[in-house]
Amino acid sequence: MAVQQVLINGQWRASSGKETFQAVNPATKQALPDVYPLSPWSEVEEALQAADQAARTVRQWPAERFARFLEAYAGQIEKKSDELCRMANLETGLPVEPRLKVAELPRTINQIRLSAAAARDGSWKIPTVDTKNNIRSCFGPLGPVVVFGPNNFPFAYNGIAGGDFASAVAAGNPVIGKAHSSHPATTRLLAELAHQAAQETEMPAGFVQLIYRTSHADGTKLVSHPLLGGIGYTGARATGLVLKEAADRVGKPIYVELSSINPVFFLQGAIEERPQALIDDFVSSCLMATGQFCTNPGLVILPEGPGTEAVIKAIAEKFTAAPVGTLLSGGVESHLRAAIVAIRGAGAEVVCGADTPVDSGRHCVPNTLLRVSGEAFLKNPAKLQTEAFGNSSLFVVVKSKEQALAVIDTLEGNLTGSIYSHTQGKDDAQYDELAPQLRQKVGRLLNDKMPTGVAVSAAMNHGGPFPATGHPGFTAVGVPAAIHRFAMLQSYDNVRSHRLPTSLQDKNPTGKQWRLVDGEWTQGDVASK
Amino acid sequence: MAVQQVLINGQWRASSGKETFQAVNPATKQALPDVYPLSPWSEVEEALQAADQAARTVRQWPAERFARFLEAYAGQIEKKSDELCRMANLETGLPVEPRLKVAELPRTINQIRLSAAAARDGSWKIPTVDTKNNIRSCFGPLGPVVVFGPNNFPFAYNGIAGGDFASAVAAGNPVIGKAHSSHPATTRLLAELAHQAAQETEMPAGFVQLIYRTSHADGTKLVSHPLLGGIGYTGARATGLVLKEAADRVGKPIYVELSSINPVFFLQGAIEERPQALIDDFVSSCLMATGQFCTNPGLVILPEGPGTEAVIKAIAEKFTAAPVGTLLSGGVESHLRAAIVAIRGAGAEVVCGADTPVDSGRHCVPNTLLRVSGEAFLKNPAKLQTEAFGNSSLFVVVKSKEQALAVIDTLEGNLTGSIYSHTQGKDDAQYDELAPQLRQKVGRLLNDKMPTGVAVSAAMNHGGPFPATGHPGFTAVGVPAAIHRFAMLQSYDNVRSHRLPTSLQDKNPTGKQWRLVDGEWTQGDVASK
Repeated sequence: MAVQQVLINGQWRASSGKETFQAVNPATKQALPDVYPLSPWSEVEEALQAADQAARTVRQWPAERFARFLEAYAGQIEKKSDELCRMANLETGLPVEPRLKVAELPRTINQIRLSAAAARDGSWKIPTVDTKNNIRSCFGPLGPVVVFGPNNFPFAYNGIAGGDFASAVAAGNPVIGKAHSSHPATTRLLAELAHQAAQETEMPAGFVQLIYRTSHADGTKLVSHPLLGGIGYTGARATGLVLKEAADRVGKPIYVELSSINPVFFLQGAIEERPQALIDDFVSSCLMATGQFCTNPGLVILPEGPGTEAVIKAIAEKFTAAPVGTLLSGGVESHLRAAIVAIRGAGAEVVCGADTPVDSGRHCVPNTLLRVSGEAFLKNPAKLQTEAFGNSSLFVVVKSKEQALAVIDTLEGNLTGSIYSHTQGKDDAQYDELAPQLRQKVGRLLNDKMPTGVAVSAAMNHGGPFPATGHPGFTAVGVPAAIHRFAMLQSYDNVRSHRLPTSLQDKNPTGKQWRLVDGEWTQGDVASK
Repeated sequence: MAVQQVLINGQWRASSGKETFQAVNPATKQALPDVYPLSPWSEVEEALQAADQAARTVRQWPAERFARFLEAYAGQIEKKSDELCRMANLETGLPVEPRLKVAELPRTINQIRLSAAAARDGSWKIPTVDTKNNIRSCFGPLGPVVVFGPNNFPFAYNGIAGGDFASAVAAGNPVIGKAHSSHPATTRLLAELAHQAAQETEMPAGFVQLIYRTSHADGTKLVSHPLLGGIGYTGARATGLVLKEAADRVGKPIYVELSSINPVFFLQGAIEERPQALIDDFVSSCLMATGQFCTNPGLVILPEGPGTEAVIKAIAEKFTAAPVGTLLSGGVESHLRAAIVAIRGAGAEVVCGADTPVDSGRHCVPNTLLRVSGEAFLKNPAKLQTEAFGNSSLFVVVKSKEQALAVIDTLEGNLTGSIYSHTQGKDDAQYDELAPQLRQKVGRLLNDKMPTGVAVSAAMNHGGPFPATGHPGFTAVGVPAAIHRFAMLQSYDNVRSHRLPTSLQDKNPTGKQWRLVDGEWTQGDVASK
């Protein structure tokens, strides 16, 4: 069987690599027919050279060009919606409806279009003008970006179509997409569409490229290469840390999203007031997509007492009764099983799931609920925060508010933290102590809501303190904020006015771009001095 | 003689360390009388614990409190101006007038006051409101920050008074200042004033602390400590890289400013049109403060020809005739001498200075001009970019525009890049090729101007690609942009409105705060839904 081609320097062509791999259908455990290459270093370097050339070609292009490419690409994806969803379903086990077709693909198209609109608008550059000193600055492109997509969002985080891709392009950067090995065919199809869109809109050859896999050594060489501008990585912690170290050592901006267990606090008042809502919210959030969200509620902190016991019992019943979802891959299954073993080994008991037999014809693990006392948690907080990526969660039953606060102090950085409290404020005193402490540990703080919904909003923060991400000042979701990750700050001091980028010239280039002129945000022109 | 005290947890007290050091007057090579301690780990950890307590105390304080502290501190510094300048002159050899008293101290006070104003204004937080999704975000404090100040700005970059300090405080973070060992008395005096201001304005005990020195191992332990929020470091590259690696490994935001040689291009048209202006600009910029600026023009690229030879000859004459300034320390002298040796070893010739005998009673090196052909530069670009921190510069005489472009391609990241061109546009074609390529290598691009002036402007970028700094998206100078370095992005999803920070509540807290509401910048209130 022919090995699939890589997209390098504007051409689909045979890889020169000898090693290959195949994806597996997790719902059948059968290998899928396509064979994909592992690219040797020479090929990676060619991609880098081509991306560098592309970056030089486009660095002074008007934003309109990037917007047009993104819009053409969004249109192509829309047209191939059925084929994409079929392919992604085969490779990931995620259901076509509603997940892939109704939720993720439209979100992906929306992200690309929002990024195009942000590029065209230009306000994301934060053009800043100091007329007194004649110094002007704005954000500009960083150079070629490589994006490593994760396993759990075959579209919305795909290395060649997801939020990092769209952000990097909106900032004016060429992208080298690195497919996730569990869904190479979906990624290939997206890259075909991206390539078509790039040709239609006359982007240079190396603007959009795709490789499937490299050796680990070549991965670190890639992220630390002098021609590279920056890196987006979403995925497993161990791999991400290796890439981060290589990139950090040479000062390449790298944005990693590594792990998050998303603590949820059920305060006494909420448990008393509306136990059923808590139960329903939690079960639906935790089992959605078989728990394979970065924002899955993997840790729930509840106060000791009969109300809590009733909630746990009801959740366990629902977990046991609910269908067991298919996991993304054998790797996800074995990691999840190992995490459950680790958490049990650190002192947690099984409430339900874990060892229950399940369908062995597909990759899955029973819906699992674990519990531990606050005291036991505090004895081994690191192990008990092992990310169990999938349909499993750990409940920590605490004796007191003090114990809950102590638990927060041991938490690693997370993407999100949620607090459910009494709607009429009965437990506000507790909220007021817990929330400020939790605030510093998470990127997004929620009230009375599970964290799994990640709206593509300008105010979203899909980011957080390490190890949720590598830097707590950036978000991977939300336009235009996500674009800043792939931009550098460029100041112009005494530069002659016709030489400035249009965003910094006196005349507002669109009549609508927001600019910070002498401390005031305005859509107007800069007044002549 | 008594060992000077450290400031830990609101108390000046004897260090428990046994090792000590003394500063040296570089103008006499004599040790100064005060003896300073090296703090053992236990003391550093106490400071961290106290800073953590302070961070918990102030995390919900109104910005007004940080502004008041900063203003009180600025006032204290102003009152002690004479004593501070006398002390700094003894420790650094920098002249009291105009440098310390007329330039650096007023700038330092101005930076602190601007940071106070930015804190009070609150627009730096980029409050962002999405009314449709009820998601709101803003930047908030990061946690305790440690600031390592450099040797060359005893006030404006001081760990307890400089831009990093003021930015970190404006964001609401406690600061642990780490004195530079070459000016501990200046730093102690500043810390005394900071402590007084903190008491006056009722800041918690651990909000401002000072240590002088730690072992290298404890330095890396400090920057990677779980209780730490972030780090500012300006100084030598080798030390900075060690700290950066330790901080990066645990995902602590660290902002390092490491080295920069600030390439300056003299285009043919400028050389023909106004040679004297170029000569005067360069000599005054390069010898200012004995060349000890991060933005010192250490590399000048000029086209081959008689005009260039005349410029080089005139500069050499001025360098030879100019007084030889005192360097900051014996370390600076030996580094500068070693750098000159390295650059010569890599193929550069001496035009003037280098081996000329100079006053051996103080730390100094003759004003040195080196030159190399473009061809020779391209054979050994790494060595020839050795930062010669001090009164020395390397001229690269290129054969062609292509050679100039090739030189740019070999450049490491720099803080600045300058291009002098013909005022009537005679060499615009060259400018148009060089500038976009240079743009990607530097944080600030200048026209017809030397890089040594760093205005405290909202549009300033005192930053740049590695190794100029560790991340090209941030600036160390310029309010409010510099504050973002010490902040985390905090999103609030469905949070009840009375629980939001005031910046995110419907009512504009000051009536003047700029906020991004549903995509529009406004100083108004959020309209009720």
